[in-house]
Amino acid sequence: METTLIYSVPFGCSFASIAALEWSGLPYRLARVEAREPASKQHPAFLAINPLSQTPALLTHAGAPLLESMAILLHLAARAPHKGLGFAQGTPAYDRLNSVLSFLHTTFHAAFMPAFQASRAAPDDTRAAIWREMAIEKVNKSLAHLERLLAGRAWLASETAPSIADAYLAATARWAEPLQLASLADYPHVARVLAALEQDSGIRFTHAIEDGLPATSQGGFLGHLALDQLALPAG
Amino acid sequence: METTLIYSVPFGCSFASIAALEWSGLPYRLARVEAREPASKQHPAFLAINPLSQTPALLTHAGAPLLESMAILLHLAARAPHKGLGFAQGTPAYDRLNSVLSFLHTTFHAAFMPAFQASRAAPDDTRAAIWREMAIEKVNKSLAHLERLLAGRAWLASETAPSIADAYLAATARWAEPLQLASLADYPHVARVLAALEQDSGIRFTHAIEDGLPATSQGGFLGHLALDQLALPAG
Ligand SMILES: N[C@@H](CCC(=O)N[C@@H](CS)C(=O)NCC(=O)O)C(=O)O
Ligand SMILES: N[C@@H](CCC(=O)N[C@@H](CS)C(=O)NCC(=O)O)C(=O)O
Repeated sequence: METTLIYSVPFGCSFASIAALEWSGLPYRLARVEAREPASKQHPAFLAINPLSQTPALLTHAGAPLLESMAILLHLAARAPHKGLGFAQGTPAYDRLNSVLSFLHTTFHAAFMPAFQASRAAPDDTRAAIWREMAIEKVNKSLAHLERLLAGRAWLASETAPSIADAYLAATARWAEPLQLASLADYPHVARVLAALEQDSGIRFTHAIEDGLPATSQGGFLGHLALDQLALPAG
Repeated sequence: METTLIYSVPFGCSFASIAALEWSGLPYRLARVEAREPASKQHPAFLAINPLSQTPALLTHAGAPLLESMAILLHLAARAPHKGLGFAQGTPAYDRLNSVLSFLHTTFHAAFMPAFQASRAAPDDTRAAIWREMAIEKVNKSLAHLERLLAGRAWLASETAPSIADAYLAATARWAEPLQLASLADYPHVARVLAALEQDSGIRFTHAIEDGLPATSQGGFLGHLALDQLALPAG
């Protein structure tokens, strides 16, 4: 069976997993979910794979469901060891990658959540302003930390090429300006890395997929599957 | 140089990293931080290692700072490959471990943060009730997910012995009842695993360390260092 990724639009953090699949060269399929729908309206096949109705969710080549961006990204890196998406267990580069990816996955991702919650609130919900204020403080604090991490470095975890950590940065940092939480101009190293990523063919492919535009794979993309066509996990 | 972990009390999620060090059998030292102090009052040596003034923070045997629980736990598991704290890169067990650890590290840990924020708020801060309400909903949703993950299983990621994922569960799930966010009696599988962990000698050692009680190491604990004695990272 082919590796299949369930991703969501708009603006899903599953973006990073699509880019990693494309970079990996492994054969894969994609299945698309509209994140605007509440969990109760999500397809039963999606809920069987992830009862939390979150993306990304991967069905591995062994047919096993694998949840959580960091686990999916580390899995793909390990399956394509010569592609430089990740690093060998036990090396200093593996430590740096895990540390950066962890920071993005916890502190940085979480910083945005109150703003997403505010954007879904009813117009008369007075809590929304409090949630947004919380997000603005946390997102700027995280961007300042990323700015320190990127000073004098080409990429987050490697000097030679973007890794899964940079893919995850591209997936999440793009939320800051549309949500009016921060200006990337205040974080020139972060802005530089994001601009460089936008030139990468895997990242451009991923944008085209999300936007429903014609997307030319330089990796192993085999097309979309409908959620109906997904093999359900056993048990 | 010996591996040194900076941990914090009370109730730090650094608890998991102490337990993992103890389980690893590696020689290590500990350095203690009072998390109640604001960042501006933290020791310069701590801030030089982690400008975000968060724990856990590890100085590896190579003298390199390593931040983020998940990165530290994966590092320790890789340095003690025969102890079963983690699993070999590329195996299904590695995927399951990363997925569970990621969930705990992102969704579960983040669920508590608004409640900690509320507990630090001024008595007349009306936002505190909104933050607590947010935490109650999210913590219960996460516990329900962990309950599903643990049904019919001895531990989170292995059948034979607790792994770094269980250590992190012990470190974080203990926040639910004192903060009055959830009752563990509603989550019998989670409660069973937590009770089993409390019998483990590494977990008992870690409680004794946090509580400032006499602690007998069955691993490689070499004693505490004052923050003044820490080797600062280069650069
Ligand atoms: N810790 C998870 C978080 C996943 C997550 O928050 N996914 C969002 C998109 S960025 C989602 O699916 N949201 C829909 C929902 O929560 O219902 C991961 O990194 O995979
Ligand atoms: N994602 C980080 C979070 C660390 C974290 O939140 N640490 C808390 C203790 S559980 C802390 O140091 N808080 C003090 C502060 O944030 O100033 C990790 O898992 O290591």
